[in-house]
Amino acid sequence: MTDDGAGKEIERLIDLMAKLPGLGPRSARRAVLTMIKKRDRMLAPLAKAMTDVAQTARTCIECGNIDTTETCAICRDARRDSSVICIVEDVADLWAMERASVFRGRYHVLGGVLSALDGVGPEELRIERLRARAAGEEVTEVVLALSATIDGQTTAHYIADQLRGLGVFVTSLAQGVPVGGELDYLDDGTISAALAARKAL
Amino acid sequence: MTDDGAGKEIERLIDLMAKLPGLGPRSARRAVLTMIKKRDRMLAPLAKAMTDVAQTARTCIECGNIDTTETCAICRDARRDSSVICIVEDVADLWAMERASVFRGRYHVLGGVLSALDGVGPEELRIERLRARAAGEEVTEVVLALSATIDGQTTAHYIADQLRGLGVFVTSLAQGVPVGGELDYLDDGTISAALAARKAL
Repeated sequence: MTDDGAGKEIERLIDLMAKLPGLGPRSARRAVLTMIKKRDRMLAPLAKAMTDVAQTARTCIECGNIDTTETCAICRDARRDSSVICIVEDVADLWAMERASVFRGRYHVLGGVLSALDGVGPEELRIERLRARAAGEEVTEVVLALSATIDGQTTAHYIADQLRGLGVFVTSLAQGVPVGGELDYLDDGTISAALAARKAL
Repeated sequence: MTDDGAGKEIERLIDLMAKLPGLGPRSARRAVLTMIKKRDRMLAPLAKAMTDVAQTARTCIECGNIDTTETCAICRDARRDSSVICIVEDVADLWAMERASVFRGRYHVLGGVLSALDGVGPEELRIERLRARAAGEEVTEVVLALSATIDGQTTAHYIADQLRGLGVFVTSLAQGVPVGGELDYLDDGTISAALAARKAL
C-alpha cells in the first residue's frame, strides 16, 4: 500500500504530474482526482491527446518552433512575410508573440540565451542556422525579441555582431512603460529607459 | 493554423490541461511545452500513466475510495482495524487522513455533504451503504471527519441520527487551534470552539 491509500498506478500518475511546472504534490493529487472522477471527459481524452503529441510533436527544422509537422505551420504559411525574421529565446516566447497577432513575419527560436553563469555559449544556440537564413536573398530585417535581462541583451549584441555584413537591418523590441502600467509600480530601469526613448506627441 | 502557432494536436492538449484544477491557459501552455521538451522523461510516461489509470481506476465497492482494484488496498488490508469506520466527504479527504498516518481503521467516503443550496439530499450520498456497514457485528465506532462548515456539521448530525440504535459509538474530530496556528490569525469561531473544548493540563 502506498502513502496516500491510492493504487500504485494512481500514485505514479500523481508523481509524474507533480513534476510539471506550476504543479506540486498537492495540486497534482487534486488534478488526478478530478481527472479520475471525470474519466470520460478528461482522463481518457488527456491520455489520448498526450499519446498523440508524444508521437507527433517535433521541432521545426527551419525555425525551431514546435509543431506536429517537419516544417511548422508558420514557416509553411505562404501569406507570411519572408523578409522579416523575429528572434526569440524560446518556443514559449514565439507563442506569446503569436497571441499578440501583430507580427506577420517568420521566427527563429534560439533555444536559450548566452550565459556565462550557466555555461551557455554560442554553439549551444541555433545561431549558425540563423546566419544561413539571414543570408538568404529575401531577408531584409531581423527583429530581436529577447528578454530585457543582461543575458538577453548580451545575446542581442552578439547576434547583431554575427549578422553584420549580411545586409540585413537588425532591430530590437522597444523598451518602455508597459501598456496599463502605473509609473508608481515600475522599477527605475524601466522608467529611465522609457525617458531616454521618449517620443514627441 | 491556431492562435498560438502550435499544431492542432498540441493546442488540443493545452486546452484539456487548462481545464485541470490549479492550471489555467498560461500554466497549461507552460506545462505542455515542458512535457514536449522532455518527451522521453515526461510526456511519454505521463501518456502511459494516464492510459493505465483510465483503464484501471475504479471506486471501491466497500468504502468509495479510488483504487485500481474492486476492493481498495485499505479495505483489503487485514492489519487494519475493522471496528472503526472514519467518514469522510471525499476521496481527497481520505488521502489526507492517510498521509497523516495516524488512523488505522477503515473509511467510508460519502461523496459529498448535505447541502440545501446545492440540492444535495441524503439519497445523493452513500449513507445507506454506511448504515449497512455500521450494522455489521465488528463495528464499534464511527468517526465523523467532515468539514467544520455548516453543511459538514449538518451532515454529521444527520449521520449520527441515522446510526442511532445500531449500537455504534459516534465520535467526531476535535475542533480547536491548529498545530502551529497563531491565535492572532485565527477566526473567532475557532477561538471560541477551542476555548469551549479547553482541557486540563
